[in-house]
Amino acid sequence: MEGDPTLQLRVFDLNCWAIRYLSKRRQERVQLIGDTLRREGFDLVLLQEVWSEQDYSDLKVKLGGCYPFSHYFHSGVIGSGLCIFSRFPILDTLLYQYSLNGYPYMLQHGDWFCGKSVGLVPAWGCWHHGHFPPPSSCQLHAEYCREKDAYLPHRLVQAWELAQFIRHTSKAADVVVLGGDLNMHPEDVGIRLLRGWTGLRDAFAEATRFEGCEDGCTLVPDNCFTVNSELLPFPLGIRIDYILYKAVSSFTVKCEELKTTTGTAPGMDIPFSDHEAVMATLHIRRQGQAAGGGWCATPLSCPCPPPAEPTLADVVTEARTEVGVGLRAARRQRYSVGRMAVLALLLLLLQAAAALGVLAGLADGQPFPKLSFCLLAFLALGVLLLATGLHLFHTMEVKMLQGTEDQMRMALRALQERP
Amino acid sequence: MEGDPTLQLRVFDLNCWAIRYLSKRRQERVQLIGDTLRREGFDLVLLQEVWSEQDYSDLKVKLGGCYPFSHYFHSGVIGSGLCIFSRFPILDTLLYQYSLNGYPYMLQHGDWFCGKSVGLVPAWGCWHHGHFPPPSSCQLHAEYCREKDAYLPHRLVQAWELAQFIRHTSKAADVVVLGGDLNMHPEDVGIRLLRGWTGLRDAFAEATRFEGCEDGCTLVPDNCFTVNSELLPFPLGIRIDYILYKAVSSFTVKCEELKTTTGTAPGMDIPFSDHEAVMATLHIRRQGQAAGGGWCATPLSCPCPPPAEPTLADVVTEARTEVGVGLRAARRQRYSVGRMAVLALLLLLLQAAAALGVLAGLADGQPFPKLSFCLLAFLALGVLLLATGLHLFHTMEVKMLQGTEDQMRMALRALQERP
Repeated sequence: MEGDPTLQLRVFDLNCWAIRYLSKRRQERVQLIGDTLRREGFDLVLLQEVWSEQDYSDLKVKLGGCYPFSHYFHSGVIGSGLCIFSRFPILDTLLYQYSLNGYPYMLQHGDWFCGKSVGLVPAWGCWHHGHFPPPSSCQLHAEYCREKDAYLPHRLVQAWELAQFIRHTSKAADVVVLGGDLNMHPEDVGIRLLRGWTGLRDAFAEATRFEGCEDGCTLVPDNCFTVNSELLPFPLGIRIDYILYKAVSSFTVKCEELKTTTGTAPGMDIPFSDHEAVMATLHIRRQGQAAGGGWCATPLSCPCPPPAEPTLADVVTEARTEVGVGLRAARRQRYSVGRMAVLALLLLLLQAAAALGVLAGLADGQPFPKLSFCLLAFLALGVLLLATGLHLFHTMEVKMLQGTEDQMRMALRALQERP
Repeated sequence: MEGDPTLQLRVFDLNCWAIRYLSKRRQERVQLIGDTLRREGFDLVLLQEVWSEQDYSDLKVKLGGCYPFSHYFHSGVIGSGLCIFSRFPILDTLLYQYSLNGYPYMLQHGDWFCGKSVGLVPAWGCWHHGHFPPPSSCQLHAEYCREKDAYLPHRLVQAWELAQFIRHTSKAADVVVLGGDLNMHPEDVGIRLLRGWTGLRDAFAEATRFEGCEDGCTLVPDNCFTVNSELLPFPLGIRIDYILYKAVSSFTVKCEELKTTTGTAPGMDIPFSDHEAVMATLHIRRQGQAAGGGWCATPLSCPCPPPAEPTLADVVTEARTEVGVGLRAARRQRYSVGRMAVLALLLLLLQAAAALGVLAGLADGQPFPKLSFCLLAFLALGVLLLATGLHLFHTMEVKMLQGTEDQMRMALRALQERP
């Protein structure tokens, strides 16, 4: 390949939905994914929701021959679920765990326990005096109710952190590839923010040839594992899994072909997952020397913000407004649990005073309801501990939302001040 | 300055020890810090432990004239304590919160509540077609007992994450400046790891002129706020606050002068803080075009690991061994609290069976100790909840230590395989 100015890169991305004991026909599907990956021989495989490390180890053993390099990203209570398989050496890895990721008490959603992150492979082989595209795999907080999306501010914080992480870690890279389940529709503010702020391009929108589900959807009613009631407002399905890319400095990238599976794995009667797989063939070409000797060769390789486009400023404003709504809600919740903690503390103090009164003999001759007294004290103590824990959690939430809002305000100012 | 190939950068770094209600003479000291900064007119001020946002706001108002740009980094329950004041525009900021930072139940230490982080200003003005040095401010987990340092694995994870963060965010920068309270002595493995893996140089070791405490110490017995008993094994004091820097691509940096305060603020009878301030004058010079047109101009600007030095491999091995010790300890703790949770659950089930027996009339005629029964049930429930929470926490700890160990193993392999 040395001397050849072009590289064809075949990328596979899939949310595997491999939750132990919960996901249907998990082992059969993981085996099927492994068989397909071994047969197809991609260059780069980005997987999400591989929650069981045993599944990763099984895949690693099976794929050792054609993908000799792989990495599993550890984080959170359950794990990040992210792993990468590669034909080329993985020399270094980096994990960024989002600072906000739902609520620990929302057990039915469980995102908080997953430690959702973006996993990056910043040093990935070497090709023609350049650097291989740093591939990233990521997943953002799920959307459980589109009409009343309580997690939107958290997802926007994640989209912003992801965008900042990509921008600041990819400056010396020639090409950036990001694949993952972003849990956002293409027109959502989070996607527009991520694309606008990083300059990443959507492989579906740019592909010369496309083959797969209509509109590139990756959650479709034809998939037997999809909960169809959730897709009622979208009869064709929704597109929430993406392959994004950008070229920095003196390279160009073109998406020659994009494919998705269409409800079942190729040639089989069951799907890989409840999501469709996304497969892109990228054509990377070197164009000669970097303009300006690598100094601010393109606005996107420069540490300054991207060029001031009125639409980008609008997108950042829109995102900032939503984060502001989340900030106010978090402050309200912090106040409310703080008040609850104070009330529980007052009740405990009142009880302590009553108990002291009894001990001092102030209520001699009157029956003392020991059992009810103890039960009430324990209840107050329980409420106090729970409310204090929640108060700490919502304080952290407020800080992170406030920090993101500050960063967005600074970004807006920089965008508006630039010519 | 345009056209001038040199830049003199005066940097001030201080751990302010400004904890509301706890730190002695806090307001007086913050005022003193503000007065000195206004008088001295540094280019860049990196502060840690500014825990009260009110103190930051007061400083911001006071310093608005000479440092028109500033940023406070929000994180954790109390905050990150980090803030930056600058003579030059801050166009963008980035915060990385360490994945491990002590234990929430170690209330007497309190590091967990601080959300310790590294705050970076990746876009900071523009100078002579190059990029200004991205300044970072950071603080790592404190050391409470050097002989039996239970937090060493956490501090090493933080040092590794800090090193990775600096390496991967500074690739397009020309010069990198990092200031902070690293809570490590110069010969500690964490400092050697941070310096070796990033290529950062220690301003104290490199300075042409030095003026201040002997050996550059920043926690000294002469400081009236220092707890002298902690410094008994070190009669001169210890050096744990640093200004580190490196030049990437076609720049050179030289530390012309380094100063520390010596137990009191200049011309005053009280110190700025329990730490000494560190002040460096850096001389930055552009040397002409970047070698190789910006492509791997120096090994440190390349995404591949730094050149294979046997000593660096030894340092990474040493750090990995310590992280491995921490990993085994975390696994033991996870197992121990898991067992406690199971025992509490068994006790609750036993009690439920006893209560059902009483309800079914199996113990008719025998007195039932309601109060003790309820107390025991609440105790078991409390232990169950606490042990489950701790189990979740230690599971996350295990994942993060394991992830760091994996990354270090990969780094070692890359170091050993390189010629």
